Amino acid sequence: MDVNSHISAEGDNQDLTEERGRGDFSTEEMARLVYGRQLAEKRRKITEYVQRNPVLHDAGEQAFMTREQKYDDAARKTSEIFRRLEEFGTYPGEESFAHVINEVIGIDGYPLALQHVMFLPALLGQGDEQLKAKYAARAQRGEIIGTYAQTEMGHGTNLRALETTAHYDKKTQEFVINSPTTSSIKWWPGNLGKSSSYAIVAAQLHIDGKSIGPHNFLVQLRCEKTHQPLKGILVGDIGPKISYNTTDNGFLKLDHVRIPREQMLMKHAKVLPDGTYVKPPHAKIGYGAMVHVRSHMIRAQAHMLAMAITIAIRYSAIRRQGEIRNGGGEVKILDYQTQQHRLFPQLARTYAYFFAGAEVVALYQKTLEKIDEGDVTLMTDLHAVTSGMKAVVSFETGNAIEQCRMACGGHGYSAASRFPEIYGVQIGGCTYEGENMVMLLQLARYLMKAADQCQKGQKLSPLLEYLKGKEKKSRLSDAEDREKLVKAFEYVSRSVVFRAHERLAALQKSGMSAEAAWQANAVEMTRASRAHTRLFIAQAFHQKVLSVKTADRKINNVLDQLCALFLNYELLDMSHYLLEDQYMTTKQIGIIRENVYRLLKDLRPNVVSLVDSFEISDRELRSVLGRRDGNVYDNLLKWAQSNPLNKEDVLPGFKTSLQPMMARAREASKL
Amino acid sequence: MDVNSHISAEGDNQDLTEERGRGDFSTEEMARLVYGRQLAEKRRKITEYVQRNPVLHDAGEQAFMTREQKYDDAARKTSEIFRRLEEFGTYPGEESFAHVINEVIGIDGYPLALQHVMFLPALLGQGDEQLKAKYAARAQRGEIIGTYAQTEMGHGTNLRALETTAHYDKKTQEFVINSPTTSSIKWWPGNLGKSSSYAIVAAQLHIDGKSIGPHNFLVQLRCEKTHQPLKGILVGDIGPKISYNTTDNGFLKLDHVRIPREQMLMKHAKVLPDGTYVKPPHAKIGYGAMVHVRSHMIRAQAHMLAMAITIAIRYSAIRRQGEIRNGGGEVKILDYQTQQHRLFPQLARTYAYFFAGAEVVALYQKTLEKIDEGDVTLMTDLHAVTSGMKAVVSFETGNAIEQCRMACGGHGYSAASRFPEIYGVQIGGCTYEGENMVMLLQLARYLMKAADQCQKGQKLSPLLEYLKGKEKKSRLSDAEDREKLVKAFEYVSRSVVFRAHERLAALQKSGMSAEAAWQANAVEMTRASRAHTRLFIAQAFHQKVLSVKTADRKINNVLDQLCALFLNYELLDMSHYLLEDQYMTTKQIGIIRENVYRLLKDLRPNVVSLVDSFEISDRELRSVLGRRDGNVYDNLLKWAQSNPLNKEDVLPGFKTSLQPMMARAREASKL
Repeated sequence: MDVNSHISAEGDNQDLTEERGRGDFSTEEMARLVYGRQLAEKRRKITEYVQRNPVLHDAGEQAFMTREQKYDDAARKTSEIFRRLEEFGTYPGEESFAHVINEVIGIDGYPLALQHVMFLPALLGQGDEQLKAKYAARAQRGEIIGTYAQTEMGHGTNLRALETTAHYDKKTQEFVINSPTTSSIKWWPGNLGKSSSYAIVAAQLHIDGKSIGPHNFLVQLRCEKTHQPLKGILVGDIGPKISYNTTDNGFLKLDHVRIPREQMLMKHAKVLPDGTYVKPPHAKIGYGAMVHVRSHMIRAQAHMLAMAITIAIRYSAIRRQGEIRNGGGEVKILDYQTQQHRLFPQLARTYAYFFAGAEVVALYQKTLEKIDEGDVTLMTDLHAVTSGMKAVVSFETGNAIEQCRMACGGHGYSAASRFPEIYGVQIGGCTYEGENMVMLLQLARYLMKAADQCQKGQKLSPLLEYLKGKEKKSRLSDAEDREKLVKAFEYVSRSVVFRAHERLAALQKSGMSAEAAWQANAVEMTRASRAHTRLFIAQAFHQKVLSVKTADRKINNVLDQLCALFLNYELLDMSHYLLEDQYMTTKQIGIIRENVYRLLKDLRPNVVSLVDSFEISDRELRSVLGRRDGNVYDNLLKWAQSNPLNKEDVLPGFKTSLQPMMARAREASKL
Repeated sequence: MDVNSHISAEGDNQDLTEERGRGDFSTEEMARLVYGRQLAEKRRKITEYVQRNPVLHDAGEQAFMTREQKYDDAARKTSEIFRRLEEFGTYPGEESFAHVINEVIGIDGYPLALQHVMFLPALLGQGDEQLKAKYAARAQRGEIIGTYAQTEMGHGTNLRALETTAHYDKKTQEFVINSPTTSSIKWWPGNLGKSSSYAIVAAQLHIDGKSIGPHNFLVQLRCEKTHQPLKGILVGDIGPKISYNTTDNGFLKLDHVRIPREQMLMKHAKVLPDGTYVKPPHAKIGYGAMVHVRSHMIRAQAHMLAMAITIAIRYSAIRRQGEIRNGGGEVKILDYQTQQHRLFPQLARTYAYFFAGAEVVALYQKTLEKIDEGDVTLMTDLHAVTSGMKAVVSFETGNAIEQCRMACGGHGYSAASRFPEIYGVQIGGCTYEGENMVMLLQLARYLMKAADQCQKGQKLSPLLEYLKGKEKKSRLSDAEDREKLVKAFEYVSRSVVFRAHERLAALQKSGMSAEAAWQANAVEMTRASRAHTRLFIAQAFHQKVLSVKTADRKINNVLDQLCALFLNYELLDMSHYLLEDQYMTTKQIGIIRENVYRLLKDLRPNVVSLVDSFEISDRELRSVLGRRDGNVYDNLLKWAQSNPLNKEDVLPGFKTSLQPMMARAREASKL
């Protein structure tokens, strides 16, 4: 009966062993659904390999390290990882490589992160053959370290307003790269501060005093031998942040730095030796990198949530507090309805985001294929989907992680839980790669256009077909029917999109300019974008569960429950939209509410197995609360005892300040 | 015209000066409303005094310090502050003393914090005359440092389950205090780890092998001379946390430590020399400390939000990004509707929480007076109000601070903004002094009882009178009418309370035990508690604005707008409750929504003055983004350049690991 008995071991906390005995489906099989068969296998092999090689282990407890120590340890392990790429059988850019980094280094960055995620893709995608020949292979081999420097202190999202300049000097055939103001200083690029010797720098191209707009240039920052900054280069680390403190996010001030003409990235736009500017053949080129990162962000966000929910659910199974029945003995906090209501919807979201994230990656791949065939029509869809998903998933994941943390009470607040770092790293996703509010408004532009097209009876992208729907009353009844729940998501999105669209038109009719009306309608439009994205996620989860045909009926069953919980919970959260034009009755909302409570109970026996299915090793999790074996308390004590404040019984500050203060008080009282 | 011109100075960022010129009311007058006249004056004097005395200034940038350095600097400044109490004219426990701490030390604790907030109140409130005579004055003079140790590793909220034992030994007339298990180790008490030489320890009293329940005992932990832990005492710091890293939250393991009988806190319950146990005269005694802290927490939470919103609004006034009108030039991000919708409701909440917090303190004081007169009837109300307020305000404030932070984009994520610390400290309020979910359920018990009483036609506390209301349809119309909005809050709370109450009864009728039904209804009841508390806040804000009669009509006007924004925004957030039984029509919800948009515009000119009114000095704010003068960018660069990672151009970890890696790669490529 006990399909997952191999997860338990001698000496485990019996409360967790008991939970694992109650789970009725194979967690290994579930892991294959979450990660895909190939990745699931590879993850396990990587975990075992790292386990066997102590040189890949942390030099100490990360939570106790200074930033310098963190950097030091990450640099050491980076070098060890890149020595062993063949043994790992994975390479930067692959999802399994991210697993190597998570196991060995952690989640808050490492010195070569931007090399592979930004520097090389930009160089390969935008550099001409000559430049690639000279630098790409060197970067791939690790001879040089590079990053991508776009954001400035004064400007993030508005590229056209970047202040860094690149003036072409015809005489010497050089560009002069310059930071004319403090606000033009490059600010935030990862690995820029201390690691990179090269950067691709976004700057306004000027030829013969004429501004031509932002372009990218390869600039050497530091001497390849000594690693000292070159002349005209002011470079450094921007200081501590919420998280990512292993990463040397940097600043860069360029003082009339000269680079050869050939170091402009000229695959698309070009500057000829005589200063002639050759336009790029296609305007949308260059968006690629951002869309790439956003497409893959969703599953990375889901993984952060998987870590958090693993910790919270395991801990809730070993933590006993209070009695439900007087004299019945203290119960696991996992048995309280409030705790279940806090955690299980986050568990359902984790699965939803993994599956919807896979859907986004699939759309990304399909779009690339189509572009190769010369068809760019999917790009607009992809841009819209990734914008909305990036914004909604990063925000909801942040809330979910904090719920997981708070559900663990005081111990959740300690760095021993690892929640602080998980939240800190994850929540950055709301801001980087396009601030969420900007993302929602970009999606809104697409939705408002779609509403126009819909009203004109024009053809819509399949992703927008639902806008043509007519259902005005929900047919939801007591009977289990996920289709009707998904219909309700469609209704909500349709109604919010068209309401925003009508309001926009009304504002213009009232005499506002198009721009002013857009501004005055912005909040309504972000609501439309959220509703549309929540529908996308709901559909993706629902479709995935429908398409899963495993031999294991237990798996189908628990996935059905998870998906149902997700749909009911999300709809309840949007119930004002369902009620506003009486799409649903109060009674139907009541059904949804009771569904949620029932599903919490139904899922209860399987929740530990549902987090075991993420197969996050203790090494990767780095959480005293979330340990596989559930032996939390003894290890919490050990962890605390080893923290730097306990090196000495009496702290220096106590001796120099408080002891004299107390002595003075004693003396005074004797007088 | 420019009533606040004295706030601006030469060299200020002109964008901020312009905003200050637009504010039409006196920020000084507003500060007197927020803090009360007396406190407002005292705050200013303290700020000036600290400014004049460099010995009270930070030894360096706090964000760059290790925990040891933070402790060191806090200890030094603690000693300086206690030298000068008379000059400051304020004493621990007063709201103005908190201002001294915030200015001089910061928001994340100091070595004597628990001495005054917990140790002394417990000693004075529960110790007998003999014990007080021996220790209280010594603690007040600062000869000894004490804390209050209740929470254990395995138990927080459930006092009855504490595992620490105190066995009475009749022969020696001593108590033997012991930590029998790892989970019984005291865990979390502030200043326990490294600062305190004494602790009041909660332990299960045993006499003649019989368990009598939790009582408090004064235990000496460390030698008064050497500060070394005494025999049988294992004490230390519990390690890093999200915030409060200046505070040495500690652990304490007691190995059969013997203390004289007189060190039990025996004002109420007693153990006589022969082992006779004398019961306390009144069971509810002992709740006092928690209720005291919770009553005063609300304004402390409001103050955290005041810091966050000050930073966000000032920064939004100097940050320019993107154009609203093509070619119109980059605009202040404060001019975007989405930014206003993110920030202004948080500004309104800050005022709401300050005023509602004052209401809670007033209720606390009134309750104390009544108790002195022998009337304990208000205690139940007070306990209910503080439980709900603690939970709702701490959670909403956390969300609000994160909105402030995210509204500042990338720079908000940097420690230079100080948001990370503000959020970290504030969000602890969701967990300490009674976990929020537990708090909501305690309030729920009071509400369910009230619903019973209401149905039986019994008399209700004035705070619950609204439960008798009958209004079934809102009369809200286009006309401005705050009364009708407050009525809607009453309706929501009434409907959610009675729905939870009915469901509880139905579950019992269906055959569940009272305990099981309570469990199965827990989430519904937390909803009732939230709705009831939101009504309390709405009423308090509304009443305060009604009662304000200043000579300055401009003040009345802007407070009207703030209060209206608060009410409309909160109701929109609860609109599903308004729609469910058609208390409001879709049209009425539309009115509320448009009210919000209109009020954002109305408030826009005054928002900088509304945060200036909190009068948070640059020293207290410790935020590069929130500086009074708005000169953010130059100071951001200075801040970053001085961070420890920039001490050397090449980090040690780069030299030892990455340079060899790169050299190997170059060698290999030559082969």
